[in-house]
Amino acid sequence: MFEAAEIKHKVDKATFAREEPRLRETLLAAQKTLAEKKPFEVVILLAGLAGAGKGDVLATLNEWLDPRQVDTVDGDDATDEERERPYMWRFWRALPPKGRIGVFVHTWYGDPVAERIGGDLARAALDQRLAEIRRFERMLADEGALVLKFWLHFSKKQQKKRLAKLEKRRATRWRVTKEDWAEHKRYGDVVAVWRHAIRTTNQAHAPWTVVAAADPEFRMLTVAKTLAAALEQRLAGPRQLVTITAPPPIPPVDGKRLLDVVDLSARLGPHEYKRRLAALQGRLNALTREKRFRRHGVVLAFEGPDAAGKGGAIRRVAGAIDARFFRIVPVAAPTDEERAHPYLWRFWRHLPRRGHVTIFDRSWYGRVLVERVEGFAEQDDWLRAYNEINDFEEDLVGDGVILVKFWLAIGQREQLRRFRERQTTGYKRFKIGPDDWRNRKKWEAYTAAANDMFERTSTGLAPWTIVPADDKRHARVAVLEAICKRIEKALG
Amino acid sequence: MFEAAEIKHKVDKATFAREEPRLRETLLAAQKTLAEKKPFEVVILLAGLAGAGKGDVLATLNEWLDPRQVDTVDGDDATDEERERPYMWRFWRALPPKGRIGVFVHTWYGDPVAERIGGDLARAALDQRLAEIRRFERMLADEGALVLKFWLHFSKKQQKKRLAKLEKRRATRWRVTKEDWAEHKRYGDVVAVWRHAIRTTNQAHAPWTVVAAADPEFRMLTVAKTLAAALEQRLAGPRQLVTITAPPPIPPVDGKRLLDVVDLSARLGPHEYKRRLAALQGRLNALTREKRFRRHGVVLAFEGPDAAGKGGAIRRVAGAIDARFFRIVPVAAPTDEERAHPYLWRFWRHLPRRGHVTIFDRSWYGRVLVERVEGFAEQDDWLRAYNEINDFEEDLVGDGVILVKFWLAIGQREQLRRFRERQTTGYKRFKIGPDDWRNRKKWEAYTAAANDMFERTSTGLAPWTIVPADDKRHARVAVLEAICKRIEKALG
Repeated sequence: MFEAAEIKHKVDKATFAREEPRLRETLLAAQKTLAEKKPFEVVILLAGLAGAGKGDVLATLNEWLDPRQVDTVDGDDATDEERERPYMWRFWRALPPKGRIGVFVHTWYGDPVAERIGGDLARAALDQRLAEIRRFERMLADEGALVLKFWLHFSKKQQKKRLAKLEKRRATRWRVTKEDWAEHKRYGDVVAVWRHAIRTTNQAHAPWTVVAAADPEFRMLTVAKTLAAALEQRLAGPRQLVTITAPPPIPPVDGKRLLDVVDLSARLGPHEYKRRLAALQGRLNALTREKRFRRHGVVLAFEGPDAAGKGGAIRRVAGAIDARFFRIVPVAAPTDEERAHPYLWRFWRHLPRRGHVTIFDRSWYGRVLVERVEGFAEQDDWLRAYNEINDFEEDLVGDGVILVKFWLAIGQREQLRRFRERQTTGYKRFKIGPDDWRNRKKWEAYTAAANDMFERTSTGLAPWTIVPADDKRHARVAVLEAICKRIEKALG
Repeated sequence: MFEAAEIKHKVDKATFAREEPRLRETLLAAQKTLAEKKPFEVVILLAGLAGAGKGDVLATLNEWLDPRQVDTVDGDDATDEERERPYMWRFWRALPPKGRIGVFVHTWYGDPVAERIGGDLARAALDQRLAEIRRFERMLADEGALVLKFWLHFSKKQQKKRLAKLEKRRATRWRVTKEDWAEHKRYGDVVAVWRHAIRTTNQAHAPWTVVAAADPEFRMLTVAKTLAAALEQRLAGPRQLVTITAPPPIPPVDGKRLLDVVDLSARLGPHEYKRRLAALQGRLNALTREKRFRRHGVVLAFEGPDAAGKGGAIRRVAGAIDARFFRIVPVAAPTDEERAHPYLWRFWRHLPRRGHVTIFDRSWYGRVLVERVEGFAEQDDWLRAYNEINDFEEDLVGDGVILVKFWLAIGQREQLRRFRERQTTGYKRFKIGPDDWRNRKKWEAYTAAANDMFERTSTGLAPWTIVPADDKRHARVAVLEAICKRIEKALG
């Protein structure tokens, strides 16, 4: 794979001088269309061997492109806000919005590959990380991003020559670090791990271009031409989904599904409720003050039909936690900044730091519930969302986040009773509107969507907790108990 | 001022039980209107003596209000991303958008007051910080925010009793820290500094409410009633500007203004240009790699008529800096998240960390230029913007940010020449559109606005650099030179 990049490639200065203006014009024109129409975002990964010219390519890209529409992402030294969240959070927050170009100089390959080279990561663990990366890049492509990855390569001999040359000249001496020479000594290991990483993540929707890096003109023309061609092609054609989606799920032939068998009869008397609520709130409060708790973020997601009691349950949970450590995110229509990013971006941005709790009042499941039923999302999009959501939750849990997902289940009759009560009770009146009555007519469709959702997203790592909620008291206590148990389990 | 809060105030449980449901209903109804119509944001500051019940009030507020629309802001331990930016950045980023309530438990008073109590801040320096705070709160109010500040107070004796009581019970022991007892010992100093801070920042548009805190029921009713009354009043009435704006500026009677006397004849030949550009870019590059540079952020703002050469100058600056350390922010129409915050929020959010450079292509001066001329901002708003901008820049420079503001000055004839050139040259054609021709007709109005701007915002700390730009080569070299000089001066 790398052999072709180690033979002598060269572009003479005259050819380069002839090609450059044409290429720049092509790039600028494409970039102009991109910035104006904002059809998609461009994600460029710039990786390579020490001394192979990442910095030079980056500088020239910024010179040839309109740098006002380019974001360079340097994730070299993670900040504490980044370190306290799942690894991918730092890259999600840096993703360019549609219309812009993001150049990642330090990429999501950085940590896993470096850990493997350093011997801190077993081969199987590396493969697991690479599989995560593949899923992430597929998600980007499915969401419409143009993803291009470059690996700047040369032989060990060429690397030695280059580093020595840089070191000799006073003006460039600072560019060669101890780490570069350390890398040179382990050239074989470095190349072996990268070869494996590149091979297993080289896919049509997020291709690697291995660039022979010894000759600066050859190197730059290769990168620029690859980018220009990819941009023109994508601007000309429509977005293509990478994920071949299976046909929509078919309900079991006997018609019997999970929500049909939930026993909604559970009840809790007011005295028992008061006693258990106080005990559970105290227990949760104590848990959040434990030292070990500071090693975990907590994410709670609440879903369920209108009037299922999500708000009331959330208040009882929030009431148990110091207000400085929780944040409630009501999920409504996305802002325009959120719409300019992949679907899950708006949830990633609210992920808690360690020791903090984020409570989502409705969640990322909106795509496979309301957006599916109301037709806001296309079928292909909500069908692939199941897997994207599973990947997202795996990222969270893998990083030590304690994730609890609640479905508050109520019967159709109980919903009607609550709607009527809301209409007649003064301070509850604001909780009901025409939307609620409209949604109620689609009860069957919402229930089917929920049943499909449980089947596809109740995973071992992130199971759904279905709470019978016809009785609010029972539901609130059940929610608090589930949270306490999950935290206790995580704290060991 | 505090005496009234030290006498024995008490609300009996029966009164409290009677008042609570009514108050909660009022608060919820007001909050509902707030969340739906999003007329303004609510900023609540919750400060008070140790043991006076900040935590309790916060918890009850979250219980009585709909906590899904409330953000609690705890700035206790600043993150490194916060520490590497001006002090106020952490509060700007936490400001609630219109429609939401932000409760600041740690407030912008925190650092200056604590430093003064600890003896690290002279009285004069404290007063300077308090003056900054006054201006910040006035800006919030001018932008429409409802600002309420609470100080929970009790006597030294009451504090001792309270802390001792909390410590005695096992369930509350954790709430009393060493710092609380240390504060108790210095009660007199603490109260003296806060008394001064509260007195000098107590203004109608951002009033302090001193709350007698010994009795929990009295304390909570006072806070909640104050909040409810303020909310209802503001929801009923229109927004009122705090700042009485002076009438719009009148040009000097002889008509002679700054831009009239700029000598646009400066020229630079291509050879000289090449030589000096290379030298300056090298100089700038070396400066950004100095160790001392990592202590400063750099903010560059570029303004000037269309086709003045801002883009070209920015590219020459960017070309000199490692792409990982600069970010170019093209200022266009605000996003809806930006519109939901005070005007300057969209610039605060892009402020660089130390060692980084943010280049604004057009800037916060849009309010007194394009927004003024095109009528996008009301007269009161752009008139008060001059002072807000001066305050903003003082914040930056006071924190060590190196700020350089450029006006690229071109003549009307040169602009016409460039417009025509753009229309006929292939790769430049995308740089001209109908907007440019329309703006050109308003040349006089834009020039007058720019002249007013120089007079009001070219301060000692943040002077304007007016660059004759009829000759692009001359302008680019002048821009680079000004940046180098300012950085050199700052690095000492």
